Amino acid sequence: MTTTWLPVAADSPFGIRNLPYGVFTTTEDPTPRIGVAIGDFVLDAGAVAQATGSDHTGLLDAANLNPLMAAGRAVWTTVRAEITAWLTDEAYRRDVEANLVPRQDAALHLPFEVGDYVDFYASEHHASNLGQIFRPDSEPLTPNWKHMPIGYHGRSGTIVVSGTEIVRPSGQRKAPADAAPAYGPCLRLDIEAEVGFVVGKGSELGSPVARADFREHVFGVCLVNDWSARDIQAWEYVPLGPFLGKSFATSVSPWVVPLDALAHAWVEPPARDVEPLPYLDDRGSTPDGLDIAIEVALNGHVVSRPPFRTMYWTAAQQLAHMTVNGASLRTGDFYASGTVSGPEREERGAFIELTWNGRDPVKLPDGSTRSYLEDGDEVAITATAPGPDGTRIGFGEVAGRITPTRG
Amino acid sequence: MTTTWLPVAADSPFGIRNLPYGVFTTTEDPTPRIGVAIGDFVLDAGAVAQATGSDHTGLLDAANLNPLMAAGRAVWTTVRAEITAWLTDEAYRRDVEANLVPRQDAALHLPFEVGDYVDFYASEHHASNLGQIFRPDSEPLTPNWKHMPIGYHGRSGTIVVSGTEIVRPSGQRKAPADAAPAYGPCLRLDIEAEVGFVVGKGSELGSPVARADFREHVFGVCLVNDWSARDIQAWEYVPLGPFLGKSFATSVSPWVVPLDALAHAWVEPPARDVEPLPYLDDRGSTPDGLDIAIEVALNGHVVSRPPFRTMYWTAAQQLAHMTVNGASLRTGDFYASGTVSGPEREERGAFIELTWNGRDPVKLPDGSTRSYLEDGDEVAITATAPGPDGTRIGFGEVAGRITPTRG
Repeated sequence: MTTTWLPVAADSPFGIRNLPYGVFTTTEDPTPRIGVAIGDFVLDAGAVAQATGSDHTGLLDAANLNPLMAAGRAVWTTVRAEITAWLTDEAYRRDVEANLVPRQDAALHLPFEVGDYVDFYASEHHASNLGQIFRPDSEPLTPNWKHMPIGYHGRSGTIVVSGTEIVRPSGQRKAPADAAPAYGPCLRLDIEAEVGFVVGKGSELGSPVARADFREHVFGVCLVNDWSARDIQAWEYVPLGPFLGKSFATSVSPWVVPLDALAHAWVEPPARDVEPLPYLDDRGSTPDGLDIAIEVALNGHVVSRPPFRTMYWTAAQQLAHMTVNGASLRTGDFYASGTVSGPEREERGAFIELTWNGRDPVKLPDGSTRSYLEDGDEVAITATAPGPDGTRIGFGEVAGRITPTRG
Repeated sequence: MTTTWLPVAADSPFGIRNLPYGVFTTTEDPTPRIGVAIGDFVLDAGAVAQATGSDHTGLLDAANLNPLMAAGRAVWTTVRAEITAWLTDEAYRRDVEANLVPRQDAALHLPFEVGDYVDFYASEHHASNLGQIFRPDSEPLTPNWKHMPIGYHGRSGTIVVSGTEIVRPSGQRKAPADAAPAYGPCLRLDIEAEVGFVVGKGSELGSPVARADFREHVFGVCLVNDWSARDIQAWEYVPLGPFLGKSFATSVSPWVVPLDALAHAWVEPPARDVEPLPYLDDRGSTPDGLDIAIEVALNGHVVSRPPFRTMYWTAAQQLAHMTVNGASLRTGDFYASGTVSGPEREERGAFIELTWNGRDPVKLPDGSTRSYLEDGDEVAITATAPGPDGTRIGFGEVAGRITPTRG
């Protein structure tokens, strides 16, 4: 069992077997730099690399994770082993202690420069719920849904780190009974609790990436809140898909959990009841599902516990699908799972499903109810996954508060 | 009348009143650097700026246009005046002549780092044609089409410069009569002739950009070929829009024509037969349509002449719509008009429309016909717009040749 000489609680989400990467600043030193979360501290990774004469100083003494992410799987594993050594071998204790910042003193930033952002739609329960709500006269799942991980490109430039205020978007809406669309602040502002995958190693234009090469390309995992304006989305999305209903903001958690920290979290995905085409077929392979337990809290009150292990399509299948046409990957490309919704009501990852489009509002402990988000509401999504020796690997949180529309 | 002492043909697409920006290298100097097209030459703008002690050396002596684009409208106008002076005032002749490269000796590169890429759908003729082909049982235009410029995010990482080979994508297709989807190379590979707009100055998250501020944010214009795999697109696009049918490649012309070069090209857009919401309403304003005459050639034979002036939605309306929800702009964001198709058959900007999904193939001078593109086919899109004094402002070309699918 790996142990650190640092005082880290046994049930800390950021134990020695996690070591997620982020980018932080402090009041004393406003230079953005790479940090590693350990217990209640942030380790200044670049500073320790310099102090110890690490071979990887160039990758760790950087303003974001992109150089490290571009270096590829072998380097990721070596660097992780080196950071583990710093925290477990007393020989490094002096250099480490000189470069630890209490977590509450660290301001956390978007940890990587985002390339392209793709949002998938991989929960059968979510897709089926939304189909029933948006297209009540049709089959809830479109005919293609079980043949491919449906996805679309989102807006990279409005990906923001947890804690960024979310300005209520304005736009066009039109209920079926209205004669013409109206313009105004979104009236059905929602969340989508998702899991995000960060691409480290790129690929060549024209050459698909195989499902089996997922671990060579994906660096790590974080949490996502894909804020959604349901009234704007419902009016705009036919025929070219969601656009302004999503593009105003997507929040991500500040810590990227390396795939290597999730070795104990892999599980079989749900049984496929439609035979997948060979490039997506993962039957009989190493399981690519992930057992991530998510919690969604509104103003401090847990309203849902979506189980990521129920997702029909895996991140490895999504990567294979996204590149099967020869589309290249770049370091910093980011893709999200789609809303995580389990089969039960209290496992749904969006208010549109939790309240069935407002028909059955969520009750809060203060006696108020919510169909959708009000100004001032704060949503925080947290998650953990199984680690070794009964520990839990924490993802931290992605949180955001709604502020009134502008102008 | 502005004249240059350089030998430039009166009918050159790159006259003294154009001065488009690009990025080039030469065999002797493989450093990417900013060039300005003038006649049959490329002017090394950074080198001349250095030689003449320009105040804008920092913006022009750069590897791409992003620093100049970020500087904003006032600087764009000043820099353009300075480059005009270099080419018209004999005092600069020596410095200019030392830094001219024959255009055929310059390799041209993607001239800017792309932020987000949005593709619109702004031609009524195109949207109506595609609606009839993709959804024969419904109204061709969706109910929202005349209320907003419909658009979606595309893949920035696969935007390539003219001349890049286009590898035929593979993917899933399923005709309505097929029992299950099949995987294989695209059988209906198509083009979309479009006009692209490059964002220079960014904007703040949460604050919309007004239609009237278009010229403050948009730096220039280029040509786009939004390659499209119609069979992949038809099977995947419901409900979240086009994804792999588009994301394998989008080609752009290497020269960005500054808005200042298009002063004589503005025209009234078509009459709006549905009253636009105030943020889109341009009735009575300075005209925001652009009179750009496009030609599409397949293997050297012109197959279509799409007229950009017929586009229902303008680039200014698209910018206002794209940000009305508070989505921010970044330097390098890029958006394309959507396929330019006029009312006549020979004005359609995609083969799916020109051949009505293969029912009426295009005949080529060599006796062959095309429903869609074959391996080895080359498509080149060129365009010009009115300049001052009877001149034409040229956009150069966006060209690409199809190569066989890989793996």
